[in-house]
Amino acid sequence: MRILVIHGPNMNLLGKRDQSLYGKHNLDEINQMIQSKAKRLKMEVEIIQSNSEGEIIDQLHKTLDGDYDGVIINPGGYTHYSISIRDAIEVLDIPVIEVHLSNIYKREEFRRNSVIAPVCRGQISGFGLDSYLLALEFFNSMSENN
Amino acid sequence: MRILVIHGPNMNLLGKRDQSLYGKHNLDEINQMIQSKAKRLKMEVEIIQSNSEGEIIDQLHKTLDGDYDGVIINPGGYTHYSISIRDAIEVLDIPVIEVHLSNIYKREEFRRNSVIAPVCRGQISGFGLDSYLLALEFFNSMSENN
Amino acid sequence: MRILVIHGPNMNLLGKRDQSLYGKHNLDEINQMIQSKAKRLKMEVEIIQSNSEGEIIDQLHKTLDGDYDGVIINPGGYTHYSISIRDAIEVLDIPVIEVHLSNIYKREEFRRNSVIAPVCRGQISGFGLDSYLLALEFFNSMSENN
Amino acid sequence: MRILVIHGPNMNLLGKRDQSLYGKHNLDEINQMIQSKAKRLKMEVEIIQSNSEGEIIDQLHKTLDGDYDGVIINPGGYTHYSISIRDAIEVLDIPVIEVHLSNIYKREEFRRNSVIAPVCRGQISGFGLDSYLLALEFFNSMSENN
Amino acid sequence: MRILVIHGPNMNLLGKRDQSLYGKHNLDEINQMIQSKAKRLKMEVEIIQSNSEGEIIDQLHKTLDGDYDGVIINPGGYTHYSISIRDAIEVLDIPVIEVHLSNIYKREEFRRNSVIAPVCRGQISGFGLDSYLLALEFFNSMSENN
Amino acid sequence: MRILVIHGPNMNLLGKRDQSLYGKHNLDEINQMIQSKAKRLKMEVEIIQSNSEGEIIDQLHKTLDGDYDGVIINPGGYTHYSISIRDAIEVLDIPVIEVHLSNIYKREEFRRNSVIAPVCRGQISGFGLDSYLLALEFFNSMSENN
Amino acid sequence: MRILVIHGPNMNLLGKRDQSLYGKHNLDEINQMIQSKAKRLKMEVEIIQSNSEGEIIDQLHKTLDGDYDGVIINPGGYTHYSISIRDAIEVLDIPVIEVHLSNIYKREEFRRNSVIAPVCRGQISGFGLDSYLLALEFFNSMSENN
Amino acid sequence: MRILVIHGPNMNLLGKRDQSLYGKHNLDEINQMIQSKAKRLKMEVEIIQSNSEGEIIDQLHKTLDGDYDGVIINPGGYTHYSISIRDAIEVLDIPVIEVHLSNIYKREEFRRNSVIAPVCRGQISGFGLDSYLLALEFFNSMSENN
Amino acid sequence: MRILVIHGPNMNLLGKRDQSLYGKHNLDEINQMIQSKAKRLKMEVEIIQSNSEGEIIDQLHKTLDGDYDGVIINPGGYTHYSISIRDAIEVLDIPVIEVHLSNIYKREEFRRNSVIAPVCRGQISGFGLDSYLLALEFFNSMSENN
Amino acid sequence: MRILVIHGPNMNLLGKRDQSLYGKHNLDEINQMIQSKAKRLKMEVEIIQSNSEGEIIDQLHKTLDGDYDGVIINPGGYTHYSISIRDAIEVLDIPVIEVHLSNIYKREEFRRNSVIAPVCRGQISGFGLDSYLLALEFFNSMSENN
Amino acid sequence: MRILVIHGPNMNLLGKRDQSLYGKHNLDEINQMIQSKAKRLKMEVEIIQSNSEGEIIDQLHKTLDGDYDGVIINPGGYTHYSISIRDAIEVLDIPVIEVHLSNIYKREEFRRNSVIAPVCRGQISGFGLDSYLLALEFFNSMSENN
Amino acid sequence: MRILVIHGPNMNLLGKRDQSLYGKHNLDEINQMIQSKAKRLKMEVEIIQSNSEGEIIDQLHKTLDGDYDGVIINPGGYTHYSISIRDAIEVLDIPVIEVHLSNIYKREEFRRNSVIAPVCRGQISGFGLDSYLLALEFFNSMSENN
Repeated sequence: MRILVIHGPNMNLLGKRDQSLYGKHNLDEINQMIQSKAKRLKMEVEIIQSNSEGEIIDQLHKTLDGDYDGVIINPGGYTHYSISIRDAIEVLDIPVIEVHLSNIYKREEFRRNSVIAPVCRGQISGFGLDSYLLALEFFNSMSENN
Repeated sequence: MRILVIHGPNMNLLGKRDQSLYGKHNLDEINQMIQSKAKRLKMEVEIIQSNSEGEIIDQLHKTLDGDYDGVIINPGGYTHYSISIRDAIEVLDIPVIEVHLSNIYKREEFRRNSVIAPVCRGQISGFGLDSYLLALEFFNSMSENN
Repeated sequence: MRILVIHGPNMNLLGKRDQSLYGKHNLDEINQMIQSKAKRLKMEVEIIQSNSEGEIIDQLHKTLDGDYDGVIINPGGYTHYSISIRDAIEVLDIPVIEVHLSNIYKREEFRRNSVIAPVCRGQISGFGLDSYLLALEFFNSMSENN
Repeated sequence: MRILVIHGPNMNLLGKRDQSLYGKHNLDEINQMIQSKAKRLKMEVEIIQSNSEGEIIDQLHKTLDGDYDGVIINPGGYTHYSISIRDAIEVLDIPVIEVHLSNIYKREEFRRNSVIAPVCRGQISGFGLDSYLLALEFFNSMSENN
Repeated sequence: MRILVIHGPNMNLLGKRDQSLYGKHNLDEINQMIQSKAKRLKMEVEIIQSNSEGEIIDQLHKTLDGDYDGVIINPGGYTHYSISIRDAIEVLDIPVIEVHLSNIYKREEFRRNSVIAPVCRGQISGFGLDSYLLALEFFNSMSENN
Repeated sequence: MRILVIHGPNMNLLGKRDQSLYGKHNLDEINQMIQSKAKRLKMEVEIIQSNSEGEIIDQLHKTLDGDYDGVIINPGGYTHYSISIRDAIEVLDIPVIEVHLSNIYKREEFRRNSVIAPVCRGQISGFGLDSYLLALEFFNSMSENN
Repeated sequence: MRILVIHGPNMNLLGKRDQSLYGKHNLDEINQMIQSKAKRLKMEVEIIQSNSEGEIIDQLHKTLDGDYDGVIINPGGYTHYSISIRDAIEVLDIPVIEVHLSNIYKREEFRRNSVIAPVCRGQISGFGLDSYLLALEFFNSMSENN
Repeated sequence: MRILVIHGPNMNLLGKRDQSLYGKHNLDEINQMIQSKAKRLKMEVEIIQSNSEGEIIDQLHKTLDGDYDGVIINPGGYTHYSISIRDAIEVLDIPVIEVHLSNIYKREEFRRNSVIAPVCRGQISGFGLDSYLLALEFFNSMSENN
Repeated sequence: MRILVIHGPNMNLLGKRDQSLYGKHNLDEINQMIQSKAKRLKMEVEIIQSNSEGEIIDQLHKTLDGDYDGVIINPGGYTHYSISIRDAIEVLDIPVIEVHLSNIYKREEFRRNSVIAPVCRGQISGFGLDSYLLALEFFNSMSENN
Repeated sequence: MRILVIHGPNMNLLGKRDQSLYGKHNLDEINQMIQSKAKRLKMEVEIIQSNSEGEIIDQLHKTLDGDYDGVIINPGGYTHYSISIRDAIEVLDIPVIEVHLSNIYKREEFRRNSVIAPVCRGQISGFGLDSYLLALEFFNSMSENN
Repeated sequence: MRILVIHGPNMNLLGKRDQSLYGKHNLDEINQMIQSKAKRLKMEVEIIQSNSEGEIIDQLHKTLDGDYDGVIINPGGYTHYSISIRDAIEVLDIPVIEVHLSNIYKREEFRRNSVIAPVCRGQISGFGLDSYLLALEFFNSMSENN
Repeated sequence: MRILVIHGPNMNLLGKRDQSLYGKHNLDEINQMIQSKAKRLKMEVEIIQSNSEGEIIDQLHKTLDGDYDGVIINPGGYTHYSISIRDAIEVLDIPVIEVHLSNIYKREEFRRNSVIAPVCRGQISGFGLDSYLLALEFFNSMSENN
């Protein structure tokens, strides 16, 4: 099983952003923990980060080549307005899971609306690094049940 | 580790409700799978179901006795208006996770708003039975990291 | 043909509530007139009243045993917010009719929205006791046409 | 007892419009069933259909001559914006019942608001042809109770 | 000076509609008083009444022949939604005055918005029959000042 | 007959404000024309202008001494938010007419709402100086009809 | 004079909930202070607490037996959506006072709307335990003035 | 191929209405250009204009006789509120194209919403006379591709 | 203990305003009853009334001299929009209580929002003169508990 | 005549996205048909596609060199929020036409609002590939009329 | 160059209001720093403070005598509702700059809307005392460029 | 002191965009004036311009290296929706000032909302080139006061 993990805008600053919201780990540490979890689950994971909406769309399109079985995406600020990313996800044949480090429903009013969620398989929000790991768990469980 | 699982209103009808949304398992089967996952994770789980808002509040209060380390709640229809359940959760000292079988963001407009989510640790929505199992995973990971 | 009639909250006070809105009959008198109409139509009617949302949900679930051919429900104040009752109705295989004694569209703004109506067969509003009797008539007509 | 039945715009196409919503009968068949029900109830019914808002208002005014004891109106699309028809109804001394073939609360958001309902005796929505017949039943019951 | 007075829908029922709102005069009496005022001001007035939006638009177009110096219109219920009447008025070269018998700002919320007013010279609302007479006065004053 | 005319805030600048909206006359000229019209109608008029909400309220209270038969008020900017002026008007026993030089419905969205109008006898908007003169005419007609 | 005091949902946890909002007393202590105040005012007070909407409605109905002269209710979370409790209060012949420990207007936006307040005699919000005691004072003053 | 062109309200005044918005041609000239374009495309076109909502509905119904292959409609002011015209279009089996001379998205806020567009094949807005001609082109292309 | 009581706009007309809403007492009588209550509680009360927003702000500032222990304010119409009064209250170190004679939640929609309440200690609404007296009681109780 | 055609985000996936909405052709086929139409009209067309908002803006700026006579843009998801693309279009001296393959008014509520349309010459929506071809037709007609 | 500086309501309390928002200086200190900056720029500055809306309007009118070249206004709480102050500013021939000590966009939702800003030359918000000084700088730069 | 100036989308077209809004200078001229002002204030300024949201975010991140003491950003169209740019700014330790050439509060409704402002130190809007220069002044004043 092969999963693409997409970190959206400003995720490269993790560890610098408000640690009470996002946790103390920087992006490298988080990626290592994702990779190590994947290893344990015998999954292959490719991880990318981008601040550019267009590039995130390009990356999502890449999965149409059939090389991936699922996508985990943290769309960051794009969560709340990028209908273009939404459209890119809607085309895909593989399940996409939206994850958030912080519980977006505890924050500013405008963060409570995700334009991405309606085209995803599901959403996991508020568990810090574990939001990613639980998404991996789901893909693992999904593959076991098929 | 001891977890209380609360199934909200109409969950006793699982397997009868729209199967494309909620999956094919009935509540007994789901509870067995929760218990078996808990066993594997060496957790103890108590499961209750209630259609009554007042009873759900009573159950949440029960955890103040200190017998539980976390709560997994699927508030069903109450998700969208029960400020009373929200208030009950807000008092608790232990983490509460809101789960939904279906992806509530794919459905009617009014289901996109959870009055419960802002007082929970996080929300997991759209993974069927796995929504519960991922919540258990999180509690397991949380206890391992402490 | 067997019909369940559910009177929602505060219906037990009929005859005490504003008589220009709800008519002069108390609940017993209304129930007698429902029963006598049912007799004439050769239908069997069971009538319950409850102020509790949870109990109303329980009663709706009861019809899944197959003992009823239809439900007439006056959800009272729950009409305007009980998504949990809505969910309970949505599961049922038999037609449910929403009735109101008063014309809810003549009253306060918030009474103009029923969260129940979209999952019912239809709605009858504003005919006092006759709202129930017309619902019985419909079930009678429905059974004759099958 | 003499009742005026007014079919609003596009009702002349019944049987052609989406049959899952409006039923399979065309307007002539519906009118025959209304007349035959009226006969059984010993009522006299006059039926008109118009696509024109002005003409519907003219017809409503006609009842001020005292020749009618009630009106049954299906305002069709005008339900949602014709304050002029509303004003015409508000003047009348006889009860007016708003009926709809389909359950308007199950459809597009804009169909959930009737500007007509607040000035009617009541509203019957969702019972197909029976919506008209139940309205006749009510007028019959009303006359028996006086 | 030649003025066209247009009474909108349901104005033919004046004297029958709620007299506390609209006054006790019927349309004939009102028209006589308009004519007699016009005579005193040495103006010529043509008065029409219509329940039909299309006919009101046709009448407004008629003034493009140059036979009129102004229009007084009471758009009745059309006040609140007839963008078509608005468009007809916007084309005219002569001033149009919107009048209302009742004070529309004292009534239901939806009556507080006129889609017509932004394309009129001005609006006179709440003076009963005098609303029309004041409009005539204005046309008189306007002609004196030119 | 004795009328109080209240010019609200910024009316002292008339002739300086946008002349296409408010006309070319300054306040003195307008007041002279009001007085000369009043003379012709054999009415007595007292005119005040104030930029202060509190002072306008004080002036309105003054009429409770019984010395006035009516009030003409142009509340200027206060039209759109001064619930305090509204409350002052609501207490009065004599009719109050709201006037505006410009057609407030042709301007910025926020000018379309008058919090004052619902407690006035009527509103005259858009006729420049004539808005005041028509109000005088109405008071004259009212006194003749009593 | 006999007063019914109803503590709504989660009030049984007082002393555990955020003390900066709700004060440091637990429910027993609050009840003792209410009883001791009542004694001083020579009033009789019965106090109940319930987390269940249906039970609160039942308790309100109980006062129709004529055994009470007034009700003090803290509807807790139900304040903001329970139209069913509102309907129950609207029927009562005795005055009902809505009280809140915290100032609900200082908190989350959704807490600023009480669906209960419009059918109560008045509302007292923000004085901690004193909110109840002031309500008792009012009933005392009311009885003295009759 | 046979097309019905329906010009809505106030289109008969073209050339008189604001020429910067609607162009300099009057309706006759526009109709000639439509006919001449149709001739070139070997299509037959029937053109009607009406200010009456009811008549426009009647005309739309006429196409149910099977004599037309498509409809081009400029609903004018009805665009923004005529759910009755919308309902008439929804019944038709042939494609309907909504056209506007001016770009309705450049104008008043209320013109940005078309209640008609959701039931049409498509919308062409802002090209003056060419809006009609492009619609003809589309019907031509459609027939060539079948 | 020294309290400042501020009566807002139009309170000087008490006894003249709608007596079913505001009670039958005039301002002098109310002030006497406030003073006599204060005497009984051994408090000193200074009472002012003003229709002017600026003057009310000035009075509130006066308390910064340290001569007062609390403020009771009935902001009248300013309740609903005077952010300037709100700002003045927010600066004060002493508790401010907002009172209303009528139950503002029973009245027009716009009266349900107080921009003042969020910066006050609490709000007492609907008890007529007693609203003031209960506020005094609270200050008394507050001083006893310190 | 030289036209720039800009395909917005996700257009490179045409043929893969929901074919009932977007048609069966892939982007290459569509581009060929655009080029072949252009050839027939003796126009020159340059076509670009980009998923990046910034790049689309850069491309629009390029036309300021004077090498193009018009732009056809399908802004895809950016239609609904890219005020930056809107600003880029507003600067241009040449006409820009907004096109959409699907009828955006038939889809999700959020797709009904184009922030781009108010700065374009016009909008063509719902005709599949023909939306582009009709835009070419318009440019052709425009050049013929100059 | 001569500038009028107007401090709005509650500015006289500076140094007492929340210092994290408004800074530690009191109004006298701020005025001295404004004067000293003005001296350095060789401008003359007159400074007034008022809590009264009417007085602020009067002061703005005073500038029509031609004695001032610009106005700097901090409208305080009036920023958000005083259409009367807005109207006063709109009349002036000289540029008016709106300044705020705190960043009003970081605070309560209602503070994000300025009814004053649309009629000012510009707005400077969030720089404490420097907001005033930057406004002086702008007037200086403006005079140098003329 | 070292400042980063970021010009957002379409700023490269300055001098081409509506000169009444944005002034007559092109971007090069503006940059020279910024540099020359900086020189006078003995500050170092680096200026970049980008139409790409992602690139702007990258630039903002660059300042985390500690090489800058402040940022001046004109987010152009991104002002109104780029939560991703907002998030990037929120992370920074140095003050960020939002500037606009035109007064955004004088323009289209949607331009009145900045999602960026709440995370900036302050906002300067409406002074043309001077908006940038005033921001430099503030940084200068800030550094002098430290």
